[in-house]
Amino acid sequence: MKQYAIAIHGGAGTILRSVMTAEKETAYKKGLEDAIIAGETILKAGGNSLDAVEAAIRSLEDNPLFNAGKGAVFTHEGKNEMDASLMEGKTLMAGAVTGVKNIKNPISLAKAVMQKSEHVFMAGEGAMAFAKKINAEMKPDDYFFVQQRYDQLQEALKSDTIVLDHTVDKEKKFGTVGAVALDIQGNLAAGTSTGGMTNKKNGRVGDTPMIGAGTYANNNTCAISCTGHGEFFIRSVVAYDISCLMEYKGLSLKEACEIVVQQKLVKIGGEGGLIALDAKGNIELPFNSEGMYRASKKADNEIYIGIYKG
Amino acid sequence: MKQYAIAIHGGAGTILRSVMTAEKETAYKKGLEDAIIAGETILKAGGNSLDAVEAAIRSLEDNPLFNAGKGAVFTHEGKNEMDASLMEGKTLMAGAVTGVKNIKNPISLAKAVMQKSEHVFMAGEGAMAFAKKINAEMKPDDYFFVQQRYDQLQEALKSDTIVLDHTVDKEKKFGTVGAVALDIQGNLAAGTSTGGMTNKKNGRVGDTPMIGAGTYANNNTCAISCTGHGEFFIRSVVAYDISCLMEYKGLSLKEACEIVVQQKLVKIGGEGGLIALDAKGNIELPFNSEGMYRASKKADNEIYIGIYKG
Repeated sequence: MKQYAIAIHGGAGTILRSVMTAEKETAYKKGLEDAIIAGETILKAGGNSLDAVEAAIRSLEDNPLFNAGKGAVFTHEGKNEMDASLMEGKTLMAGAVTGVKNIKNPISLAKAVMQKSEHVFMAGEGAMAFAKKINAEMKPDDYFFVQQRYDQLQEALKSDTIVLDHTVDKEKKFGTVGAVALDIQGNLAAGTSTGGMTNKKNGRVGDTPMIGAGTYANNNTCAISCTGHGEFFIRSVVAYDISCLMEYKGLSLKEACEIVVQQKLVKIGGEGGLIALDAKGNIELPFNSEGMYRASKKADNEIYIGIYKG
Repeated sequence: MKQYAIAIHGGAGTILRSVMTAEKETAYKKGLEDAIIAGETILKAGGNSLDAVEAAIRSLEDNPLFNAGKGAVFTHEGKNEMDASLMEGKTLMAGAVTGVKNIKNPISLAKAVMQKSEHVFMAGEGAMAFAKKINAEMKPDDYFFVQQRYDQLQEALKSDTIVLDHTVDKEKKFGTVGAVALDIQGNLAAGTSTGGMTNKKNGRVGDTPMIGAGTYANNNTCAISCTGHGEFFIRSVVAYDISCLMEYKGLSLKEACEIVVQQKLVKIGGEGGLIALDAKGNIELPFNSEGMYRASKKADNEIYIGIYKG
């Protein structure tokens, strides 16, 4: 029987030990551990990787610490607009949503777009109409109200800057969550979800909902979920680039990640990172920022959890 | 001095000689020729490829025969919602919009997103707010009213089918326009614009505004603009796939186009085509559908115009 594997991220950026309290660190690690366990439970029982990815991301979306779902940051207008996408490596089927509001779990809506519509990608009001049609779980505005996120908006409004996920401690973070998984049938899947950028003007679409940029999965190569400065990730078609370097150039997952994250993205100023998993269960968690909230688990190993470099 | 080159498309699909009148054919050919000349005029004068791509696409957007700009089809709600994107091969800068209304030339709005915003991709109301801020040229609803498009909607509403660009003659067309260009400085650019699918439910995003899927340009490899069943083009990351096959596998433009359009897309049922141009000025115009409105011109050659296979 093949071994399963799962990896997740909770965003990358300037995450410094110097401004992290022991309490906060413990809370983040617990959030990552919970998400890994949510995904692993499905894989261990023989479930498929797409469901494991969804479960892990739902756990992160339900946790106010991460910028997705409940913890989504506020737009310029004081709203929470969210994006998500996921892809199945066996069929190359995919689903994505952008600019959705009041959706408890955008990753599950993206899955429904994949499984219950003839489309891959739905935006704004149309995506909301689809959500209502399939009875997606909705939450009122106050569910998404997290004091820290609101304070971030007030601070950003003062200076009218767009911040990617700016904490009160002046950290710069790319708030995104994601998961990649390999099930015991040997199928890969990937998913990504985000609450966007604090004080962003309504309508900006980042790499998160873009198949090929923020999310990609293909059983022949790898499953990828990205977190970083989205504009650079779109222009570099990051997730599919790693897949192509493996498929067309014969590179290993590790080599492909090194070239894309540490060379190509760095060259154009594209800060961030990604999680990557190949069909053999190899896991890479590269980032070129100060830190990335990340965790991984293979069937027989302990859970790995990391926040800082090294 | 290097030679310039330009190619355009006006959509692919079931375009049959049997249902085409001589009058319609002449009108389509004239529309394609006008667009080529609009782009070529800029290239011949030493202008850059991005401006040539914009000019050629504006010409197609202003022509009611093509499903973009003025000729955009009607959504389910009887509105015209348009998408566009473009990319510059020298800088890998890109701009894209989805779900914009009343914009005379969506391709120029995408260019403004690239040049005048910090974002790559803007959607819906946010994109419209940006359009107003930069004084993009707006047109009232009746500018976009084309009787044939309205009749298509009424016909589609009767059967509640989504049709990609269904003419009264029961042709199936993927209504998109696009251009790729190489300027005498050796810089490539690509752009794509569409009015979407007749009777589509508000919010569906196709491959047209997606960098990597519908549009891609890189001076190291090629410039690509796609037209076809968007969902398959997104899942296959078509435009960037051709670039990767050239860069990582060392294939020629022709070989890469053959694999992606005639093999990979056919295998998953992805009907359509694309226009492709490499940095040496080689042009490929492959499609796996019955026909594709297409034209090309190199500095010293006559204009080539094609509609059907062969």
